[in-house]
Amino acid sequence: MGCGAVGSLFAANLSLLDDVEVWAFDLAQAHVDAINRDGLRLSGAGDVVGRPRATSDAAALPPCDFGIVATKAMHTEPAIAATANAFADGYVATVQNGLGNEETLAGHVERVIRGTTFPAGKLLEPGHVQWDVKGDTTFGPYDERTALAEVERLADACTRAGMPAKAVADARGPQWRKVIFNASTNPIGALTGLTHGRVCERADLRALVTGLVDEGKAVAAAQGIELDADPEGLIDHAARKDVAYDHKASMLQDVEARRQTEIDYLNGGIVRFGGEYGVPTPLNAAIQALVKGVEASWTQS
Amino acid sequence: MGCGAVGSLFAANLSLLDDVEVWAFDLAQAHVDAINRDGLRLSGAGDVVGRPRATSDAAALPPCDFGIVATKAMHTEPAIAATANAFADGYVATVQNGLGNEETLAGHVERVIRGTTFPAGKLLEPGHVQWDVKGDTTFGPYDERTALAEVERLADACTRAGMPAKAVADARGPQWRKVIFNASTNPIGALTGLTHGRVCERADLRALVTGLVDEGKAVAAAQGIELDADPEGLIDHAARKDVAYDHKASMLQDVEARRQTEIDYLNGGIVRFGGEYGVPTPLNAAIQALVKGVEASWTQS
Repeated sequence: MGCGAVGSLFAANLSLLDDVEVWAFDLAQAHVDAINRDGLRLSGAGDVVGRPRATSDAAALPPCDFGIVATKAMHTEPAIAATANAFADGYVATVQNGLGNEETLAGHVERVIRGTTFPAGKLLEPGHVQWDVKGDTTFGPYDERTALAEVERLADACTRAGMPAKAVADARGPQWRKVIFNASTNPIGALTGLTHGRVCERADLRALVTGLVDEGKAVAAAQGIELDADPEGLIDHAARKDVAYDHKASMLQDVEARRQTEIDYLNGGIVRFGGEYGVPTPLNAAIQALVKGVEASWTQS
Repeated sequence: MGCGAVGSLFAANLSLLDDVEVWAFDLAQAHVDAINRDGLRLSGAGDVVGRPRATSDAAALPPCDFGIVATKAMHTEPAIAATANAFADGYVATVQNGLGNEETLAGHVERVIRGTTFPAGKLLEPGHVQWDVKGDTTFGPYDERTALAEVERLADACTRAGMPAKAVADARGPQWRKVIFNASTNPIGALTGLTHGRVCERADLRALVTGLVDEGKAVAAAQGIELDADPEGLIDHAARKDVAYDHKASMLQDVEARRQTEIDYLNGGIVRFGGEYGVPTPLNAAIQALVKGVEASWTQS
């Protein structure tokens, strides 16, 4: 569900497996038509032409064993509300950014899989996605209704399809590491217009990033979540000239295109969990408010 | 010194007094030439054509009893370095925004007057300033080298000229109230693109404004400065539809025109004094870093 950049990486690769039938559900009719006509093409880090069946009509979906939700976080609710019937006996995994997607899915389906994924890409044109970077995916049961063995089936299929994935009992560590990374860097790029590398080479902004990271770590720790690695390492690694120095954060791309951002699910998620667990998050709240203000500035009062 | 909007309000009005000779020092040659040819015209809240003598040559200035510095805060140093000779036996007052201007002036002249002013305007064209809003000015001695009686002479001249001013023993209260007001609202407008009224009607941004105000108040209190009124009152008053709801903060105007902002003298000043007095100012530091980042984004790395 949601066959944008990340969704297409999963759909195209999984469709190469003989034992898996893949449906791509997406509301962009031109994209759906192109996939059904010419296949779903990936180029860049890997060159693939997949043959998923594509539809923008949720009623056309057959009963499925697994769903992978890859919409922007603000579209989770309508996407799962439309497609839930197909997963009455199946499992629905999220590979989305941000916090709260699992809870939204669990409002519509019984068995939910938490997931965090690092591959990235960009939709170039209908039916064609640029695969920018390969990376790992981690899945884990959302709650006791989801058996780890089933999570392993999904991870195994992804791995065999060329999208390395592992199943773990508690996937919150990788998820929070990525959320903290995104929440601490994406909006700084969006608010200043600077690339990731330029944010990190300014001592004042790098200190702000660390202030945001520290709040996120405290909120994770209060929930008993053990991060699989320090987000600071990921931030410094990405700042390297040979990695992502010149990368414009996706939220900066959103702001430049005047598209609604995922701020409520990144910093907003940290603030919300902080509130529930009594951990102060003034910097994340400030950043969330500023980005919401930027979004508001696009419309007349 | 600095015959922009605010400087012109003082220069034009004071030049109407029979007992005062006014020189306007400014580096914009077209403005200087227009003033000397046609006078210095104010229109709007008051309609005045003043006849100060104008020059961009500091050596042309005669010895002066009083100077009024009205440059942007980042130009205080070069302005006073160029003109200090004219004030060997005189007094130099600042009516600028931000913190630290008095210290900079005191590095070049003996007798400094702290000042805070509320009138505002906009340079429309050389020789012509739009007078947007009238308001009071408060002056006070910077240190014991400046006699209050001399401050009263300056305030009296301004008042007689139609720029109501008073002299007080400690002018830090009004100064900090205005600095806190500006530091807590100007950069929020600059970072989001929202007018003052729209910032204030969003609960999340209004809470951020209060967070910034509270840090500023704590830094003022740690220095024993008693604010003459709560900056929150000024913020809410300005947000009214019949006051400044639609006002774009000067810093937002600077950002839109890609001009260097006064952030280092507003939030940066609060952070600096906070550091000296052991008062944490994480929100002001964050806002300062973000605006510096915006400025950095205008140049290639």
